[in-house]
Amino acid sequence: MSFLAEDKASVLVEALPYIKHFYGKTIVIKYGGNAMINDELKAKVIQDIVLMKFVGMRPVIVHGGGPDITEFLKKVGKETEFVSGLRVTDEETVQIAEMVLVGKINTEIVSLLNHNGVKAVGLSGKDAELIKAQKHLAVVHENGILRKVDIGFVGDVKKINTEILNDLLDQDYIPVIAPIGVGEGNESYNINADYVAAEVAGALEAEKLLLLTDIEGIYRDYHDKSTFISTLTQQEARNMIHDGTIAGGMIPKVEACLRSLEAGAGKTHIIDGRQPHSLILEVFTPQGIGTEVVK
Amino acid sequence: MSFLAEDKASVLVEALPYIKHFYGKTIVIKYGGNAMINDELKAKVIQDIVLMKFVGMRPVIVHGGGPDITEFLKKVGKETEFVSGLRVTDEETVQIAEMVLVGKINTEIVSLLNHNGVKAVGLSGKDAELIKAQKHLAVVHENGILRKVDIGFVGDVKKINTEILNDLLDQDYIPVIAPIGVGEGNESYNINADYVAAEVAGALEAEKLLLLTDIEGIYRDYHDKSTFISTLTQQEARNMIHDGTIAGGMIPKVEACLRSLEAGAGKTHIIDGRQPHSLILEVFTPQGIGTEVVK
Amino acid sequence: MSFLAEDKASVLVEALPYIKHFYGKTIVIKYGGNAMINDELKAKVIQDIVLMKFVGMRPVIVHGGGPDITEFLKKVGKETEFVSGLRVTDEETVQIAEMVLVGKINTEIVSLLNHNGVKAVGLSGKDAELIKAQKHLAVVHENGILRKVDIGFVGDVKKINTEILNDLLDQDYIPVIAPIGVGEGNESYNINADYVAAEVAGALEAEKLLLLTDIEGIYRDYHDKSTFISTLTQQEARNMIHDGTIAGGMIPKVEACLRSLEAGAGKTHIIDGRQPHSLILEVFTPQGIGTEVVK
Amino acid sequence: MSFLAEDKASVLVEALPYIKHFYGKTIVIKYGGNAMINDELKAKVIQDIVLMKFVGMRPVIVHGGGPDITEFLKKVGKETEFVSGLRVTDEETVQIAEMVLVGKINTEIVSLLNHNGVKAVGLSGKDAELIKAQKHLAVVHENGILRKVDIGFVGDVKKINTEILNDLLDQDYIPVIAPIGVGEGNESYNINADYVAAEVAGALEAEKLLLLTDIEGIYRDYHDKSTFISTLTQQEARNMIHDGTIAGGMIPKVEACLRSLEAGAGKTHIIDGRQPHSLILEVFTPQGIGTEVVK
Amino acid sequence: MSFLAEDKASVLVEALPYIKHFYGKTIVIKYGGNAMINDELKAKVIQDIVLMKFVGMRPVIVHGGGPDITEFLKKVGKETEFVSGLRVTDEETVQIAEMVLVGKINTEIVSLLNHNGVKAVGLSGKDAELIKAQKHLAVVHENGILRKVDIGFVGDVKKINTEILNDLLDQDYIPVIAPIGVGEGNESYNINADYVAAEVAGALEAEKLLLLTDIEGIYRDYHDKSTFISTLTQQEARNMIHDGTIAGGMIPKVEACLRSLEAGAGKTHIIDGRQPHSLILEVFTPQGIGTEVVK
Amino acid sequence: MSFLAEDKASVLVEALPYIKHFYGKTIVIKYGGNAMINDELKAKVIQDIVLMKFVGMRPVIVHGGGPDITEFLKKVGKETEFVSGLRVTDEETVQIAEMVLVGKINTEIVSLLNHNGVKAVGLSGKDAELIKAQKHLAVVHENGILRKVDIGFVGDVKKINTEILNDLLDQDYIPVIAPIGVGEGNESYNINADYVAAEVAGALEAEKLLLLTDIEGIYRDYHDKSTFISTLTQQEARNMIHDGTIAGGMIPKVEACLRSLEAGAGKTHIIDGRQPHSLILEVFTPQGIGTEVVK
Repeated sequence: MSFLAEDKASVLVEALPYIKHFYGKTIVIKYGGNAMINDELKAKVIQDIVLMKFVGMRPVIVHGGGPDITEFLKKVGKETEFVSGLRVTDEETVQIAEMVLVGKINTEIVSLLNHNGVKAVGLSGKDAELIKAQKHLAVVHENGILRKVDIGFVGDVKKINTEILNDLLDQDYIPVIAPIGVGEGNESYNINADYVAAEVAGALEAEKLLLLTDIEGIYRDYHDKSTFISTLTQQEARNMIHDGTIAGGMIPKVEACLRSLEAGAGKTHIIDGRQPHSLILEVFTPQGIGTEVVK
Repeated sequence: MSFLAEDKASVLVEALPYIKHFYGKTIVIKYGGNAMINDELKAKVIQDIVLMKFVGMRPVIVHGGGPDITEFLKKVGKETEFVSGLRVTDEETVQIAEMVLVGKINTEIVSLLNHNGVKAVGLSGKDAELIKAQKHLAVVHENGILRKVDIGFVGDVKKINTEILNDLLDQDYIPVIAPIGVGEGNESYNINADYVAAEVAGALEAEKLLLLTDIEGIYRDYHDKSTFISTLTQQEARNMIHDGTIAGGMIPKVEACLRSLEAGAGKTHIIDGRQPHSLILEVFTPQGIGTEVVK
Repeated sequence: MSFLAEDKASVLVEALPYIKHFYGKTIVIKYGGNAMINDELKAKVIQDIVLMKFVGMRPVIVHGGGPDITEFLKKVGKETEFVSGLRVTDEETVQIAEMVLVGKINTEIVSLLNHNGVKAVGLSGKDAELIKAQKHLAVVHENGILRKVDIGFVGDVKKINTEILNDLLDQDYIPVIAPIGVGEGNESYNINADYVAAEVAGALEAEKLLLLTDIEGIYRDYHDKSTFISTLTQQEARNMIHDGTIAGGMIPKVEACLRSLEAGAGKTHIIDGRQPHSLILEVFTPQGIGTEVVK
Repeated sequence: MSFLAEDKASVLVEALPYIKHFYGKTIVIKYGGNAMINDELKAKVIQDIVLMKFVGMRPVIVHGGGPDITEFLKKVGKETEFVSGLRVTDEETVQIAEMVLVGKINTEIVSLLNHNGVKAVGLSGKDAELIKAQKHLAVVHENGILRKVDIGFVGDVKKINTEILNDLLDQDYIPVIAPIGVGEGNESYNINADYVAAEVAGALEAEKLLLLTDIEGIYRDYHDKSTFISTLTQQEARNMIHDGTIAGGMIPKVEACLRSLEAGAGKTHIIDGRQPHSLILEVFTPQGIGTEVVK
Repeated sequence: MSFLAEDKASVLVEALPYIKHFYGKTIVIKYGGNAMINDELKAKVIQDIVLMKFVGMRPVIVHGGGPDITEFLKKVGKETEFVSGLRVTDEETVQIAEMVLVGKINTEIVSLLNHNGVKAVGLSGKDAELIKAQKHLAVVHENGILRKVDIGFVGDVKKINTEILNDLLDQDYIPVIAPIGVGEGNESYNINADYVAAEVAGALEAEKLLLLTDIEGIYRDYHDKSTFISTLTQQEARNMIHDGTIAGGMIPKVEACLRSLEAGAGKTHIIDGRQPHSLILEVFTPQGIGTEVVK
Repeated sequence: MSFLAEDKASVLVEALPYIKHFYGKTIVIKYGGNAMINDELKAKVIQDIVLMKFVGMRPVIVHGGGPDITEFLKKVGKETEFVSGLRVTDEETVQIAEMVLVGKINTEIVSLLNHNGVKAVGLSGKDAELIKAQKHLAVVHENGILRKVDIGFVGDVKKINTEILNDLLDQDYIPVIAPIGVGEGNESYNINADYVAAEVAGALEAEKLLLLTDIEGIYRDYHDKSTFISTLTQQEARNMIHDGTIAGGMIPKVEACLRSLEAGAGKTHIIDGRQPHSLILEVFTPQGIGTEVVK
């Protein structure tokens, strides 16, 4: 790097008001997409989280499964069917999902964080019954009629028990959460990680929910970069879903933001995880990045 | 059950001195073998641990992998080679072992405990760097010469970081530990669960280490039930290994006990996990069961 | 004892839900009657209380005076007159009652408990002004007219100061209370121990009040064992006093239960102290024993 | 009173260095003799103790039995024999002593203190096993030979368990102790209150032991008031016992002081309890009063 | 001094109810006037405050500037103009006032207190932003019209931040406050010390505000000593200001009392600081001194 | 500023290891020289300290007097004499020094810090007797003979009482210390601020002492910029003072560093306060700046 010393100092000083503002605040980060696959991006996300911890924030990580689950199902010769974009999940499938999420992806993130000098602890929704879940029914359009279909062990969050999170946060650990929930009958559910992050942020009354995605944010017109939107109110977001401006894969992201705000989160952000150090840039610089959805 | 009320009371009163003695004491339980496979036995082990917790003990569980790892390796078409009884463990193998141990067996024990009214939290050796590990070399006898052989990601415990255990125990959680360690380069190691339990009990200066096994205990002469041994001192145990009285699969069990006593545990017990409620019987009744190895 | 090991375990496991339920809960025990006179029963009551303490309950004992006061009054040649079943209590009489209750019965219970491995502390109502009292007037029926008569230093509870109880309970002591109250002018009052226990249970918002008596419980028809009543609501109990089903010595017991429920206790129980280990059987087994009066 | 306002202020200011010095310090007071019999003196002792508490000291009271025990024994027609000045104490006698000490004298002191605005709690040596005791043998001189004689339940202090005292002191209670000890077999012992006070002061490492007596202090020549001694070292005191200068009833007082210093007390004082407010004068004024025995 | 020992004891005992009453209570003392100039009086005020601290009160000192500011302004050749009795205060003047108050008077009081065995800490309104201030406008009567005039850096209290006071009081320090406030733009304001004391007492919900003045208290008729007033209600005080009975320099003292009561103080007192030990006499004796203004 | 977002992130990430290292560590900063006079530099020092606080360090500030004391002495017409470079300090002089240091410079730094969002509290050595001092004698060379000369109220640190510092640091305040000490007789001493900072850093066992000066650091040859020294051991520093390489105004700076290391500080640094953000650059960047003196 070829910065002058004084320039470096300026950057640090510029970060000061953000450090002050977020001191002691809880920040929930949904970690997924490219930022979880590309090793270089992965290292930078880890650095960003460690920095957030050391300047006094209370980061909580929720991760998704990436392509690992699919790959593993293939490995054991399990074919997968999808209904309305959701994987039909029988008992064997949810078990493999749980093994991949809890026993591979979660442990890897935890050990990367610990290797960088913080104290991280991996959790699934089963630990201290963190995530109580119930069956999620898929909605299918058939001949113009909406019908709910049982697709197995795909779940919705019923309740977040924040006790274990607060106990760990108060003792300076970083909780890393795999999106597996537990049902009344002790059965496992695979849950969309964006929604888990949204509910966790809400239950903790987090200052911010940061969703790392593989897009830059929301555009009024996807083909015209100049229509990028920095801030959306809840109402605007709802309207844009309704009129189709927000569509496709963007819908669940925005819905997760809306749900999180309702449940108690302060602000929510859709951020481009493909940009190196996007977390730091969002949190520590005046420009911010991505699209925020706010009350 | 057809006990008279007064008989029930007698049993409870008989347990009183044991409850007093173990109040506030840490008990490390190695959970494995038949007690982990048979659903009825499993339910009884869970009840026993919950009872121990509710009468004021601080139980810590370390579990093994049972036949699940082998079965899963078979499922993905991975063939396994053994050297001196240890599985040759390449990177794919250790990853599958980790997935099975952390993402399947551990989460199941945790959710069974929680379902029974306590607060359990699953840990692997990566959480807060609980188990720092190093490579374990297999010893082979070749033409009368002992040679050490690299069999991959099979590990020895290098250090137990008790901080996360004490933090959880002090807040009334039951830690459930999968025997995966983490090396200097952040690589995973599969470690013998008996040894992990032994080291954890030592590092916590536990009152007792209880190894649930598939045998009744140690016999001076395996074929003569009347030679059953209730108590062994460290010295006697060492002598009996040396003179071959203790042999085969019994050696690592006894060595785990010896190591645990050295590292700081108070007493160690080899218990028959096939006997229903063997934990309760060992801890709460005057007879005790199995063989204890003591200082 | 000739139980099989497994049977013993079953009894302990059967107790588990009760242990869970009462963990950390306050249980007030009125100790009196045969259970205080018969040495064998006494030993069993002490064991029961110690067991309750060790499985995490917070027992509080209130004891009566048994025949010791009468015997001592006789010894000093003091004749006693009774009005409506209450002892006319002049200054010398209340002093002797206090000496017997505080200096003999209380110290004996305290030292028996301590001898069995818990930490008990004796209290009278004067300690930290635990029981503020006022004069109780006896009611006499004379020529069909009810008249209130001053019978000296017989008292009613005016206020329970729970501070010293909570301070001792929080530091793991078992408080043992003699039913002596202190009046505005610092004078002593002898108070019915059932009522003291009822008020203490109410003021502490205890989970349970257990009255050890010399009867099995309440019968609809005292001569027909088949009419035994396990549960009474407050309303039913009041009706049965009104219609005379509950009569004689049973009235003050039931009134103590009713008063305790009003004052804040959770449940109240009239238990047969002549049955060995009746406390344990009531608290730790599904059958329960005696008659409960509940809201 | 006819002081000028300014004179009053001077007295208060004069007390300041003593208040500073004793802030947070433990002071053990042996309360006995005339100060316990005369109602006016009694009221002043209570005021003095309350003042000590309010200016930040931690007073602990140990009381004797005065003539009440003798009077009560007479009442029940029990004749008493003395050996070497010690009462031969059979089981009935020790029970009456306990009843008088714990159930009459102790409760009276406790309620007087509470009536004056502090929080006092009465204790006997049985509470939380405060005073573990063993049999004290009387020494008789027979034909020039010393012989030890069993005189029953007269005890020596074997161990003071300070836990209950510290727990109460830390929560701002004043402990008031009756000199009854408990033996290995749970039997009661009557113990000399001066010795109990001495051992309690030692075990608590009290700043001061104050023995209220019915004499002014120690004289070199009892008939010559000008030979009054203000300060004695341990060595001087031992010499004066040896050469007979200290004799008769003075010996046990001085021996209690010597024992207390050995056991850990800071300073010990023999004070004239017949002088009104002698405690205040000793503690809060430069003159002090009585004789101190110091290291 | 020639008191008899017993008389001394009486004075101490007489103080007991006052010591009890004020135990743990916060007392705010405005220290000014002759008591701050005369060295002998000063020593006695310090002793009084130390005594208050040692008997368990929480004293807080607010001091004025006395003639030191005027003297120092003269020294640097700065002439001062007064408007309606208030010093016109330019930037140089407020800086000198701050230097005198914080760097001379405050440090001297602090070191006198520490020298007498307590732990005092000096504060100005700038420390932890204790006193937020705003400009005070002087009111002038010109041709029968009231006009507000800007006289520079003379301030009113806008807000007292009690956090630093409570933090220090809880750790047994005595806060000593110089009446300098800080404005929105970080500028200094000189504030009347009576008003600062009044606001501090209100914000702390102090038990008492004691204003040390150079008068004996309030008279109905200043020329007739027999018209001295011991107690005034708020309403009476307001009426007497309105009807001119309270006039001149007495008005701001009484207004400070009224403001303090409104803001949360329990009682307020105008005391003659010229009388030695007037604080002790007010607080520890039944007579009290001076005039109290109460709700 | 025209950095790219990613460059900014790099600077922040580069700071991470330093933030980690100093987390929870105490850093003592001697604030003086140009950095205290130039308003722009002053603002940057304040920003740097606030940043240090927000990333988890425990900064403690000790300030000097700059030219303000001299200016104020001139203002009041006080002429000053110097002996061996030290101001002859009579009572009036030390009083003016104290007023300037405590009542002007200290309050200004405190209010600037508070204005930037932290909680700062000003202290002089008199607060809670933080700095106990004794007279410093000047050393004069007269006719080849060293003679010690009394130059009045110039002091040396005798003892630092860290209690008030730790109490404030533990409650998240930044202590700001004026270099005034208090003598046995309660007299004030003006002390060299470098030495005060050195002793404070030693007594607190601070991680670092940072001396802000008006030079870049130490050169082996002052005229040759290439001889700049980054690190000196204690021994090297002592040798260079002895052989004259370190001379003039540099000697007391280096001696302060040596004294601080002896007294318990971890590392010491002589830093160029004229360089903007020199504190940040020293603490948060790999290059560091200035000269460090280490063990």
